[in-house]
Amino acid sequence: MKEHIDVIERAGDILGALTPGALFTVCVDGKVNTMTIGWGMLGIEWRKPVFIAYIRNDRYTHELLERADCFTVNVPVPTGDAEADARVRRALGFCGSKSGRDLDKIAELGLTLVEGEQVDAPAIAELPLTLECRIIYRRDQDTALMPDELRESVYGDAPVYHTVYYGEVVDAYIVK
Amino acid sequence: MKEHIDVIERAGDILGALTPGALFTVCVDGKVNTMTIGWGMLGIEWRKPVFIAYIRNDRYTHELLERADCFTVNVPVPTGDAEADARVRRALGFCGSKSGRDLDKIAELGLTLVEGEQVDAPAIAELPLTLECRIIYRRDQDTALMPDELRESVYGDAPVYHTVYYGEVVDAYIVK
Repeated sequence: MKEHIDVIERAGDILGALTPGALFTVCVDGKVNTMTIGWGMLGIEWRKPVFIAYIRNDRYTHELLERADCFTVNVPVPTGDAEADARVRRALGFCGSKSGRDLDKIAELGLTLVEGEQVDAPAIAELPLTLECRIIYRRDQDTALMPDELRESVYGDAPVYHTVYYGEVVDAYIVK
Repeated sequence: MKEHIDVIERAGDILGALTPGALFTVCVDGKVNTMTIGWGMLGIEWRKPVFIAYIRNDRYTHELLERADCFTVNVPVPTGDAEADARVRRALGFCGSKSGRDLDKIAELGLTLVEGEQVDAPAIAELPLTLECRIIYRRDQDTALMPDELRESVYGDAPVYHTVYYGEVVDAYIVK
């Protein structure tokens, strides 16, 4: 069962969850991969509710997104069950430190996938607050346009950058 | 007096206010101009709280931002006083339809400016929830990267686009 929610009304919960993290999931050729994100934006552009994700160009997810037009974001909702909450924290730690190039994170953790309503990417029942997003804009973020101090503190000399993915929020709900 | 707030915790209130609107204010050479915005994002990038504003390239504010490194966002807080709330709605309508090229909107409406704490742009007491933002990234949004249907519905054939301004939220409070 899914309880539909207003994504703007719940913005505080969603953005608040980014520390320590939420799961960002894509599905390509039937293969599902998820990673932990700690950055993101929520709001309105082009009269649409939008979630913006920033994915580093050296991530497996970045590679998958070249062939994906949608993603899901899954946010923990505290259950009051200490063991279940600790399992979610461990999952966030694991999905933020392991790469889908090396292993199937979903299978390894035994996470429960729930088919998407509007997009070809699943929700994850253990982090039940779900945003289904269709990508409507994507662009590399030009590190040359950042203040020197910020660029150096975030990227150093590494040849990395983030790509900005604008996902129109086409559905939002809590998996029950 | 200013009551400091957590901008992420209040994200729902801030983003919820974008419909019907919030005020976006810049100050250049001591001259203050404000306009109504209905689009915006709030969240975290580069480990910083950020408000993103989208300003059309034909706006006076866009011209002023070429010489500004900060802005404020002011959000209405319902007072329960019908007359005061109606005055705020009229101000939002006025600041969304008149240009600072033609008149001084602040003076015309008799709005009360309150000096910024961290930035060289004022808060507006009548819309007391205030974000003070320092611009850390700006870039034109490339309409060629948008899906055709979206670009046509938003921009038609007009030679306009939006510039994206990332403002690090350096202070957030409610003017009392």
